Amino acid sequence: MHQVYELTLEEAKLMIEAARKKAEEINVLETIAVVDSGGYVIAMERMNKSRVTGPEIAMAKGFTAAGHKRSTHLFNREPNGPVLPGNEAFGIQHMIPGKFATFVGGFPVVVNGEVIGGVGVSGGNGEQDTAVGTAALAALAEHLKNDGHEVITDADIKR
Amino acid sequence: MHQVYELTLEEAKLMIEAARKKAEEINVLETIAVVDSGGYVIAMERMNKSRVTGPEIAMAKGFTAAGHKRSTHLFNREPNGPVLPGNEAFGIQHMIPGKFATFVGGFPVVVNGEVIGGVGVSGGNGEQDTAVGTAALAALAEHLKNDGHEVITDADIKR
Amino acid sequence: MHQVYELTLEEAKLMIEAARKKAEEINVLETIAVVDSGGYVIAMERMNKSRVTGPEIAMAKGFTAAGHKRSTHLFNREPNGPVLPGNEAFGIQHMIPGKFATFVGGFPVVVNGEVIGGVGVSGGNGEQDTAVGTAALAALAEHLKNDGHEVITDADIKR
Amino acid sequence: MHQVYELTLEEAKLMIEAARKKAEEINVLETIAVVDSGGYVIAMERMNKSRVTGPEIAMAKGFTAAGHKRSTHLFNREPNGPVLPGNEAFGIQHMIPGKFATFVGGFPVVVNGEVIGGVGVSGGNGEQDTAVGTAALAALAEHLKNDGHEVITDADIKR
Repeated sequence: MHQVYELTLEEAKLMIEAARKKAEEINVLETIAVVDSGGYVIAMERMNKSRVTGPEIAMAKGFTAAGHKRSTHLFNREPNGPVLPGNEAFGIQHMIPGKFATFVGGFPVVVNGEVIGGVGVSGGNGEQDTAVGTAALAALAEHLKNDGHEVITDADIKR
Repeated sequence: MHQVYELTLEEAKLMIEAARKKAEEINVLETIAVVDSGGYVIAMERMNKSRVTGPEIAMAKGFTAAGHKRSTHLFNREPNGPVLPGNEAFGIQHMIPGKFATFVGGFPVVVNGEVIGGVGVSGGNGEQDTAVGTAALAALAEHLKNDGHEVITDADIKR
Repeated sequence: MHQVYELTLEEAKLMIEAARKKAEEINVLETIAVVDSGGYVIAMERMNKSRVTGPEIAMAKGFTAAGHKRSTHLFNREPNGPVLPGNEAFGIQHMIPGKFATFVGGFPVVVNGEVIGGVGVSGGNGEQDTAVGTAALAALAEHLKNDGHEVITDADIKR
Repeated sequence: MHQVYELTLEEAKLMIEAARKKAEEINVLETIAVVDSGGYVIAMERMNKSRVTGPEIAMAKGFTAAGHKRSTHLFNREPNGPVLPGNEAFGIQHMIPGKFATFVGGFPVVVNGEVIGGVGVSGGNGEQDTAVGTAALAALAEHLKNDGHEVITDADIKR
């Protein structure tokens, strides 16, 4: 057997709290989902007046980031994004329908080098969703650093 | 146009907080979702160590309670539950696949006589899910009573 | 709680009536759906002899316009349409399968600055669907102006 | 963060090897899937000449056993099976369509009291699927006992 870390509800809420504060600061209405390594929601919040499409899309972004171990904007970013027409994974965006999100807003939660979850953010443009998602990662990093754990806080994460 | 009330994120979180405390008190691991009148999640939490099937099922219960305006256990309770074999709505449980939950754990949020959302609880047995779900309703009722709003806090709700 | 406006059936029918008249005037066979803020149909009509694919597509357009708060042609219009290959939301069109429409024919219903529903039109080309959909918005604007409500009647709506 | 155990591929193969031997011994053609705590396949084998429906069903059984933390025959066994008409979870079988299996053949993998995966078996009757599935659990128990880990090997598992 392997031993692996798992996010707690308390940590997920701390991440969402930081994300929501960042969203309020930059004035964007977001849904934020924190998921486990299997892509299952631990906690999710949709800000007042934000889109009803938010939860479904935020969950998909979190699932994809955690499950495919990649920031979701790395799938479709020019020129090498693998899901772009002409590139070799063009078509993978149709797999696992409704759950495989290959555009900006999903970020893996990587602790001590291992993906243990994901954050999905839906509601803003790419820059906004990225600011909000990485705020969640930064809050977790801050929270865990005293115990000697390292969390990746960059936007571009690929395992 | 009609004017209708809408739950805020703050109210949804207050409901989840009360529900989670009740779950801790009666020692059961639950996922709790609070949804709006369209069945879309406002906030959701999955307790540590609880089932990964929780979010999907809790969301379905909340959706059905809000959207069909009925506590979900009223669908399948003996002897008149309409989805029981021999009763006239037997089969409705296959509609809107994956989202129409016709068993215990979903409760409409009724404010001043109107359904404005739902609570879905998944993880315990019927008695436990009901205790947790109605704790959420009671917390909302307490919170809104000073403003003169009435919230139904019974388990059996049908509009 | 927040208080929000909700379209009535009478208003939805008035919108459809205006849309259908416009369709007859420009000689195109359309299905027209008016949906609420959660994307659920309030009223829908399919003109004689029009396509059987109309209802499913018109509902998707209305859902997306209402739920994502954007005219659906703004998703795919050159050169900045966010779902075009190379742009940042390329891939969002695969979310919420069968319901997320990212091409011309869906328009949010915005009253006093808030999205309270959507209109989805399917059957014609882009110019025709737009003429029909905005006719529905204009009819609502006319109907509500005496009560001091403002309705956006432009084709390009983004919240 | 919590720390949890995770099955390795080597352990999953060892479980399948034992299960397949049992199937050969009792002369039944089976598909056997071993999944992780999120219900995702670690390893799967379909015996020569066995049914093509096997993989989909075995995966669903493994998913449900792991994700809902219960041997799948406990859902529908007379008289207390919760999904039987008249019992309180009648209807849960329609959740997570195609993945939630509420009949014999799925068994949680419980190590030191925690569910860390599941085994799904499809191809035989209930007695056969149970013999094959519990053979997998017994093999894992044997393998891990020298390291001081306890694995539940009964057929009836409920957390």
